[in-house]
Amino acid sequence: MSEVIGTPFPTIGIMGGGQLGRMMALAAIRMGMAIKFLVPKQTGGTMGLGTTHVGDWTDPAVLNEFIDGCDVVTVESEWAPIEAVENLGTSIPCYPRSSTLSLIRDKGVQKTTLKEAGLPVPPFACCSSYTEALEYAQGSGFPVVVKRYKGSYDGYGNATAHSVEELKSAWSQLADDNGVLVEAWVPFTRELSVLVARTPEGDHVTYPVAYTEQKDHRCHAVEVPTVIAKATEQKAVEIGLGAVEAVDGIGLTAVELFELEDGSILVNELAPRPHNTGHYSIEACFTSQFENHIRGILNWPLGSPQLRVPCAVMVNILGHRSQQVESDSVRESLKTDDVSVHIYGKEETRPKRKMGHVTATGDTLTDVRQKAELAASTIIL
Amino acid sequence: MSEVIGTPFPTIGIMGGGQLGRMMALAAIRMGMAIKFLVPKQTGGTMGLGTTHVGDWTDPAVLNEFIDGCDVVTVESEWAPIEAVENLGTSIPCYPRSSTLSLIRDKGVQKTTLKEAGLPVPPFACCSSYTEALEYAQGSGFPVVVKRYKGSYDGYGNATAHSVEELKSAWSQLADDNGVLVEAWVPFTRELSVLVARTPEGDHVTYPVAYTEQKDHRCHAVEVPTVIAKATEQKAVEIGLGAVEAVDGIGLTAVELFELEDGSILVNELAPRPHNTGHYSIEACFTSQFENHIRGILNWPLGSPQLRVPCAVMVNILGHRSQQVESDSVRESLKTDDVSVHIYGKEETRPKRKMGHVTATGDTLTDVRQKAELAASTIIL
Repeated sequence: MSEVIGTPFPTIGIMGGGQLGRMMALAAIRMGMAIKFLVPKQTGGTMGLGTTHVGDWTDPAVLNEFIDGCDVVTVESEWAPIEAVENLGTSIPCYPRSSTLSLIRDKGVQKTTLKEAGLPVPPFACCSSYTEALEYAQGSGFPVVVKRYKGSYDGYGNATAHSVEELKSAWSQLADDNGVLVEAWVPFTRELSVLVARTPEGDHVTYPVAYTEQKDHRCHAVEVPTVIAKATEQKAVEIGLGAVEAVDGIGLTAVELFELEDGSILVNELAPRPHNTGHYSIEACFTSQFENHIRGILNWPLGSPQLRVPCAVMVNILGHRSQQVESDSVRESLKTDDVSVHIYGKEETRPKRKMGHVTATGDTLTDVRQKAELAASTIIL
Repeated sequence: MSEVIGTPFPTIGIMGGGQLGRMMALAAIRMGMAIKFLVPKQTGGTMGLGTTHVGDWTDPAVLNEFIDGCDVVTVESEWAPIEAVENLGTSIPCYPRSSTLSLIRDKGVQKTTLKEAGLPVPPFACCSSYTEALEYAQGSGFPVVVKRYKGSYDGYGNATAHSVEELKSAWSQLADDNGVLVEAWVPFTRELSVLVARTPEGDHVTYPVAYTEQKDHRCHAVEVPTVIAKATEQKAVEIGLGAVEAVDGIGLTAVELFELEDGSILVNELAPRPHNTGHYSIEACFTSQFENHIRGILNWPLGSPQLRVPCAVMVNILGHRSQQVESDSVRESLKTDDVSVHIYGKEETRPKRKMGHVTATGDTLTDVRQKAELAASTIIL
């Protein structure tokens, strides 16, 4: 069966078994590497790829078995406890480091770190009491965005408060022992993303600035190249790289940005791992974000992040029904030319869960967008 | 561990565990499918991908266990006994069919089939005795190419005879009970390849004509697009498609062609599976040969075989030393930009064994060729 046998080729340990770990594995296997996954429970995404250990990923016994034979350990989510591996006292490198994750997991710490590094972020305050939050909101003016410090994503754990009443309600829902993060509402015109791959020695490459379109607080589509003023693009890349250096990100780190009407750029937030906004890179770039993540954590030379096609559009496939995925609609979607369909193999479909994505490539954004939307909307999972 | 769990997504059974099966699996997994391999012995290439059954692949008990849960069964080599699966009386489709393989495995039968279908092939004769071979050679004039009917490839099982003495020696080495195939020596100027993906219903797509450069009787490099006269290109595609229809090829079939000085095209031979001359398609085409093989055998819509980059060059990585592969040189090779490195994970390195390949893509063939050669020559396995 699929036992990993020791070879002089690196073995990559991945904590987490969702689509990001899966796509890391596909890139690494192509380069001759072996994969070990560690997941708290089996969810299907790693089926048929590498060896999967299922167990409590904070338990030293489980972890010791997992890291045996690994040349490096990484995570597919900022919530995977890589500190538990570091605490084993192993000499196996762990990237991203827990010190990076701890600067990112808490949104208050993350924003403070970025601000102290001189990076532009929306005005914010870490408010430990409702009174503080109210004072901040009244000072900056409503609306404000209230964020839970930990575990907020895709519209969960966030609220926009337009009034004192809404602020009160947001506080009661989102505050933990340390309170909440309150941000001034920023009138951004669109969201952009910059991906940075970086080695432990600080070598780095930055991917093209991507336009990320949100629907319902979720990433719906990503377009590259972004139609953008040269100066704004350059600023976005500089700020993205600065943000990644501020948290000492190693491997792939994604930087979500706001673009304002006057062309100024603010950092929204960081993800210390390959990111939904970089999936297009599998087909569209000389080196995908997943390959550069693997190369980065191994301290191998990074590959070119440039586009090798004129343009690309990625559209997410979200779950519709709470049952197993069906392949008929995938078959149907392949009648659309020039698209690559990615299905993540998750056993359970939940409404709005990311079940796959489609990337189309071609000569013009309009044409490519149309194909990606058509193929993605045909797939009903 | 990596058990395949039943889902409504197709499960692909692959007989064979070399690089072709491996790359089929990577394409299928990306689309959410599951993989089962059957190999006579474990050789490393399928490690970490799907479920691998090791056993006698002509034994009905082994085969029944293997096909359980499969939606389709395919092979990565014309020598894998797909007829043994058909003989089980299963309703699971097997593509390519054994009837196709039986027209291809024996080079005498293959050439005769192509000739009878009206396709241009070098003059040849199936010679059941040395006297017949001698008469044919004297009639056509030396040199002639002598080929073993079965199992000849990459310069093995072939000989070019320039004289009666060499013909005698070739006969004694290559003749089986039915004799040998003797072909007139054809003064071709270069070798080309056309790949055809085809469904059981006869839908098909043809890949761009590729120039395949041989060194030492082995494919060294493949270039696309080929610099070629429009009329010759069209003829090559027509002949390629005709050859695949003549053997009723399903899934991916590769057609190796000779181009003569006057622009005429002859069929050299067929391979009823993804082929070394199509590896470039992973990075360079909208749909890779592996993805279209999977789509073809499932009777799913085929994808565009067109290039999505200006040009691509693939260079093979052959084994140098009889020991396990080392990754240091792979790391080194990644200093060359714009290349994708594929390592097949074979446990045993043998001199001249195909251990991996490199594909470079970019704007000009000269630049891309240089990068692919540099990266490939850096890798010492």
